[in-house]
Amino acid sequence: MSDENLDRGAGSGAAAGHRLSRRHLLFGGAAAGIGAASAVGIDLATRPARAARRGAQITAPVAGAADGSETVAFYGPHQAGVETRPQAAVTLVALDLLPETDAGALRRMMRVLTHDAARLTQGQAALADSEPELAVTPARLTVTFGFGPGLVARAGGAAPAWLRPLPAFAIDQLDDAWNGGDLLLQIAADDPVTVAHATRMLLKDSRSFTTVRWRQTGFRRSAGVEKPGTTMRNLFGQVDGTVNLVAGTEDFDSLVWGGADNPAWLHGGTGFVLRRIRMNLDKWDGLDRAGREASVGRTLATGAPLTGSHETDEPDFTATTAIGFPVIAEFSHLRRARSENRGERILRRGYNYDDTPDASGVSNSGLLFVAFQADVDAQFVPIQRRLDELDLLNQWTTPIGSAVFAIAPGCGPDGYIGQTLF
Amino acid sequence: MSDENLDRGAGSGAAAGHRLSRRHLLFGGAAAGIGAASAVGIDLATRPARAARRGAQITAPVAGAADGSETVAFYGPHQAGVETRPQAAVTLVALDLLPETDAGALRRMMRVLTHDAARLTQGQAALADSEPELAVTPARLTVTFGFGPGLVARAGGAAPAWLRPLPAFAIDQLDDAWNGGDLLLQIAADDPVTVAHATRMLLKDSRSFTTVRWRQTGFRRSAGVEKPGTTMRNLFGQVDGTVNLVAGTEDFDSLVWGGADNPAWLHGGTGFVLRRIRMNLDKWDGLDRAGREASVGRTLATGAPLTGSHETDEPDFTATTAIGFPVIAEFSHLRRARSENRGERILRRGYNYDDTPDASGVSNSGLLFVAFQADVDAQFVPIQRRLDELDLLNQWTTPIGSAVFAIAPGCGPDGYIGQTLF
Repeated sequence: MSDENLDRGAGSGAAAGHRLSRRHLLFGGAAAGIGAASAVGIDLATRPARAARRGAQITAPVAGAADGSETVAFYGPHQAGVETRPQAAVTLVALDLLPETDAGALRRMMRVLTHDAARLTQGQAALADSEPELAVTPARLTVTFGFGPGLVARAGGAAPAWLRPLPAFAIDQLDDAWNGGDLLLQIAADDPVTVAHATRMLLKDSRSFTTVRWRQTGFRRSAGVEKPGTTMRNLFGQVDGTVNLVAGTEDFDSLVWGGADNPAWLHGGTGFVLRRIRMNLDKWDGLDRAGREASVGRTLATGAPLTGSHETDEPDFTATTAIGFPVIAEFSHLRRARSENRGERILRRGYNYDDTPDASGVSNSGLLFVAFQADVDAQFVPIQRRLDELDLLNQWTTPIGSAVFAIAPGCGPDGYIGQTLF
Repeated sequence: MSDENLDRGAGSGAAAGHRLSRRHLLFGGAAAGIGAASAVGIDLATRPARAARRGAQITAPVAGAADGSETVAFYGPHQAGVETRPQAAVTLVALDLLPETDAGALRRMMRVLTHDAARLTQGQAALADSEPELAVTPARLTVTFGFGPGLVARAGGAAPAWLRPLPAFAIDQLDDAWNGGDLLLQIAADDPVTVAHATRMLLKDSRSFTTVRWRQTGFRRSAGVEKPGTTMRNLFGQVDGTVNLVAGTEDFDSLVWGGADNPAWLHGGTGFVLRRIRMNLDKWDGLDRAGREASVGRTLATGAPLTGSHETDEPDFTATTAIGFPVIAEFSHLRRARSENRGERILRRGYNYDDTPDASGVSNSGLLFVAFQADVDAQFVPIQRRLDELDLLNQWTTPIGSAVFAIAPGCGPDGYIGQTLF
């Protein structure tokens, strides 16, 4: 769960500024918002919001506005919802195309979905909004579209090699109810009513063309409670996601937005993996604090490696105890998730889930593990393979759902998501 | 859904002050928090938080602190979570007692539950907290305990006549998975991680004594987005709960905390009704705006009665259209829910739900309709009976779960919830 990537790049204001300028040239004024949003995401971790706002010349309200008025720009070279600082609530929906939904119908559907998503993210009612009063609170709403292999085939496009179900892992106990899909909607905002309303409006747009395959809802700490720059804790109480790619860095650009080997229509896009990971909280209760820390290789209090004192300290895998055992065990999650290959890194954007259990269950909790990477095969799969072979955390966690999508690039105000594919 | 009670009492600062003093005499310093919390709840609707804080001399942080540090006092003459301004997230859990859980075991269980609930609400880890790091964000957490008929019988206590399943209504399609229970936990906070953690700790405390019967999760607008004094909207987009009893008023005290006919152990407590109401959003989509407004008798834009212009305007049932029909139809929800009997009023504290549907469903949405009243038979049942007989909203809503509990009175720091019963 606390998958590790090699380091946490330092966000550079100058680099972000450079990106802004480049984007502004490419996309004009409409792009400033997205570029700015990511710049704010970087800056807020280190300096006050007001200073960040002055420095970046952005039009959107400052990150963290608690009244739900804040918006994230929809149009731009990349879709929002990837670089965007994670919102408090998410709904992920996978749709299957109806047999009669041909390439022309796909185009019509994506035009309508794009149009309504753009409106809703700016706090405007969808075109045929049946509850416009619920649309007035954008609360940093983002809508991110992903294409499954079935949709790319239906459109007659070239699929990247990695756009297929992940290889089978020994730890998996997948339930097909949570697997796959043709079209992904990632709908996230700092307010769950906003997410529920946007989800419903977009499902109304798509229902002539698709059926719902699955729908999954997740949450993090509320906006304001989870400070920008803080790593979330999962329901095991672990600091979850310490080492992560950071928007605005070169590593981020190459490992998330890169993908020169991807088909041309996907340039500016990325790859998306969702793993629904059930966490056995009752079994976890049987483990004491030392055992929990050993299983991950990090302290529970701060998330620091067992060889360090701060969350972001580099672990020392050579350190040994007085009797000669490694301080960070070979079987620990931290050790197993880490690669010597700096290319094997991903952007994580996970959410807790704590669904109402059915009549037979006491709890129904876990993690919606969401990862973005330009090449799923080269980045996500090797990490998952190492964890599959050996990771003490596997004792308490079980992947029960798995899906892979290609996140299309963004578009300008006159375009639509998917225009490069169709 | 938008059940109506006759009026919205005016919160009087003088009355609230009087109550504070009386409570302070009874319970000492510990009670000030609860009294103050309700006073703040009243005041915030009309004046700035800072002024309210100065005026009321409270110790708790001001309502609306977005960083999750705000606490609601646990100890006091009444349990918290009734007068408390509704938090953003709730989990409701019903437990069934194991056959071997006798009166002595009940006492032990409620002592442990009370102790841990008190700690968690103040941002302190539970006594055997396995994830203390998740406990540091109280975010206005309240835990409210309710006793079902089975628990009262097990304790050998006298049950009020209304403590039984509601009478059968023609509109009901109850699923026993959502009905009844021996012990209720209402766990609410402005942060869903806080709710999930508290729920888990309390279920650990109770698992030697009980099994989980059902668990239901609900949400409102995020803290800060839903302004104090604003009426929530449900997922139909309706302003839901305009007419409600207001904490600190005489009507509230008599109709919620009153109950002179209730057994002595319940004095200071109240009655609790939960109706799980499925909302057929797809069918609702088939109705135009005029039809929606006619079904409720209120405008969608503001929630004003169709004869008025403001949400709190009194409806005029005698007003007719140019061709002689009533402006507010006889079959409208507003008309049907309203009684000429001012005693037939309730405190509503509802939540939306939007659960992950199972494999067969596209959506799984609705309302957790929670009502507090001193006498369920005299207050809730007549309202529900009128709605059962005729209410256009029944076309789109279906009660699928139903439960009644007695909310025990509060306790002081040396006591425990239920001490007056056992």
